[in-house]
Amino acid sequence: MTDDGFLPGPRCRIDGSPDGPLVGLGFAVKDLIDVAGHPTGGGSPDWGRVQPVPSRHAWVVERLLRCGASVVGKTVTDEVSLGILGENAHDGTPVNPRAPDRVPGGSSSGSASAVAAGLCDFALGTDTGGSVRVPASFCGLYGIRPTHGRLDVSGIVVQAPGSDTVGWFARDGALFARVGEALFGAALPATPPRRLLLATDAFGFADADVQRALEPMRARLAGLIGPPQEVLLAPQGLSVWQVAQRVLQSSEAWTSFAPWLDAANPRLAWSVARGLMTAALYTDAERMRAALMRHEARARMTALLDGETVLCLPTTPFPAPLKGQPVSALAYPRDRISCLTCVGGLAGVPQVNLPGATVGGAPVGLSIIGAPGQDLSLLALARRWEARAE
Amino acid sequence: MTDDGFLPGPRCRIDGSPDGPLVGLGFAVKDLIDVAGHPTGGGSPDWGRVQPVPSRHAWVVERLLRCGASVVGKTVTDEVSLGILGENAHDGTPVNPRAPDRVPGGSSSGSASAVAAGLCDFALGTDTGGSVRVPASFCGLYGIRPTHGRLDVSGIVVQAPGSDTVGWFARDGALFARVGEALFGAALPATPPRRLLLATDAFGFADADVQRALEPMRARLAGLIGPPQEVLLAPQGLSVWQVAQRVLQSSEAWTSFAPWLDAANPRLAWSVARGLMTAALYTDAERMRAALMRHEARARMTALLDGETVLCLPTTPFPAPLKGQPVSALAYPRDRISCLTCVGGLAGVPQVNLPGATVGGAPVGLSIIGAPGQDLSLLALARRWEARAE
Repeated sequence: MTDDGFLPGPRCRIDGSPDGPLVGLGFAVKDLIDVAGHPTGGGSPDWGRVQPVPSRHAWVVERLLRCGASVVGKTVTDEVSLGILGENAHDGTPVNPRAPDRVPGGSSSGSASAVAAGLCDFALGTDTGGSVRVPASFCGLYGIRPTHGRLDVSGIVVQAPGSDTVGWFARDGALFARVGEALFGAALPATPPRRLLLATDAFGFADADVQRALEPMRARLAGLIGPPQEVLLAPQGLSVWQVAQRVLQSSEAWTSFAPWLDAANPRLAWSVARGLMTAALYTDAERMRAALMRHEARARMTALLDGETVLCLPTTPFPAPLKGQPVSALAYPRDRISCLTCVGGLAGVPQVNLPGATVGGAPVGLSIIGAPGQDLSLLALARRWEARAE
Repeated sequence: MTDDGFLPGPRCRIDGSPDGPLVGLGFAVKDLIDVAGHPTGGGSPDWGRVQPVPSRHAWVVERLLRCGASVVGKTVTDEVSLGILGENAHDGTPVNPRAPDRVPGGSSSGSASAVAAGLCDFALGTDTGGSVRVPASFCGLYGIRPTHGRLDVSGIVVQAPGSDTVGWFARDGALFARVGEALFGAALPATPPRRLLLATDAFGFADADVQRALEPMRARLAGLIGPPQEVLLAPQGLSVWQVAQRVLQSSEAWTSFAPWLDAANPRLAWSVARGLMTAALYTDAERMRAALMRHEARARMTALLDGETVLCLPTTPFPAPLKGQPVSALAYPRDRISCLTCVGGLAGVPQVNLPGATVGGAPVGLSIIGAPGQDLSLLALARRWEARAE
């Protein structure tokens, strides 16, 4: 077991194209994403065992290689992407370089860890319910969950197709944005968003010291865009949206993984198995209610956002929890985090974590959300964010 | 991974006392039972990791060493005793020497395997819901589940205290009985039981070819005792008793293991985790009904059995299932087996599996049950059983 975020053993390396906008950059790949010729382990000793070794790269890997970036290794993930804290009972917990006594966040734990430690230029993760945004907040990184459906997720282990996305992490805002231009195949917009919304329910939901720590970042964002307008993100309640997203996401995850569970009887951490079993117990009535609420969440985001508007909120309600806590001690914090991340999965909107604050020495991030398709506007803001910081 | 039933690595060996009734015999110890100085692994990579290495032998090991028998190794068990088929996702499946394409039965899988292969003279197992009786039937061995509470279970991983017992396997009826004399500290009775009961509901519950295969054994038993009287074992239904035993046993197992699950977040096979999660969902009302039914089952056994009566039934409704089947394919057979084994856990009565039949080349056993405390009568019958066979 290693704790630098990379899988143990020799690192998989694939040179990118000699031409392209990302020549010279090295990226790590979450082990949920196919790299041709290398088994996709999925964070479980019994996933790769029963899957064929991929003969093709995932779309996103292929695209990055064509743009000139090189694969420098594969990284640890929470078991089959089920987790947002980053503790893996089989592969160990990748170090959080910014707070070594704390979890790195997950499920893209190893990718965040490797980028934060400076071991690669950027790294791919996936985000279904918070798996890029949470480790970005906990490790002090730029991280994006793109608009749902905008980047092709073929060649990536399916968790919940209604929410699955592929995203990335970087330490550097300009590089972070460059990767987006290459992946989306379009340039950043020249003009920034003109309207800033501040989600009062989401800020109020965070710990008081997190609210205080994010104040200078809020002010800086207002300086870039304009004075913020206070709004309610979720009039029904963040906790109500969180339940809806959990029911939808974990019901889809159950559908995705049940055949594997039955055929392979895999080894799973108790916490992961318990979550899957809980998912199996939701009723059709619960799933129906949650699906209706997804329409409401989308309508709410349409009402709040247009192409010139950005909404800001804390990415996580607190910095990374301490490592090695009992399962029961982490259940409540995990659900509390999901209250702030659920809107991404429910409404499919793009979200970027901006680094820049700490609480007790541990990072915590500010998020910006745009209307569906406004990924490049968010990335442009991330580039300006850093330019201003320098 | 090995498949001879013993744990991988160097075998733990402890010489017995130079004097005593069991001098010269070597026995294997299920890895749920403490041997001083050796970690008790419990069939899980995360059980031994968080338990101290035992400084004392379990009572039963100490007793056997004092009687002159020697420990020759520790054996594979289903994860923390939860299973009756013998497939362990971490340690592998011990071979069933009598039917290599089939499971050995569990949870005392390695002990049954090692005895059946002739690798030791006898072996210790535990039986809560069938964990000695089932592998004895599947591997063609003598095996006993003693009267509940008669042999001290200290130094053994606790599953369900209301049903936990420690038992043993042997190939040879005379040796099988000798071990019992040593452990119970008493001689076998000179006179055999005088009355034989035949549980028609239990026989009818077995596969038709098992019923036919057991006919010569039934006739032989009648020859030893006298003509059988047909009775109903469970007037409420074996399936109703099975549910009661499952609710009681798995609720107690949940109580036993929940603190470990929470603190260690252990790796578990999906099938095992799912069973624990199901156990956590029983209601107090279900537990209450099951506890009341335990009184009824005990009353029924008191009505049927006295010190001179033995009841016979098929140990399992079929021989060992094929190895490597999906989880869903094994759930129903497992519950069907429990319909025949549940009376031991519910009523605390002693039960011995007699080998001697096969179906399609795979062993299946006939069981004899006595009143509580009649263990030595059953062992005396096992000795006579073999004497007659020779």
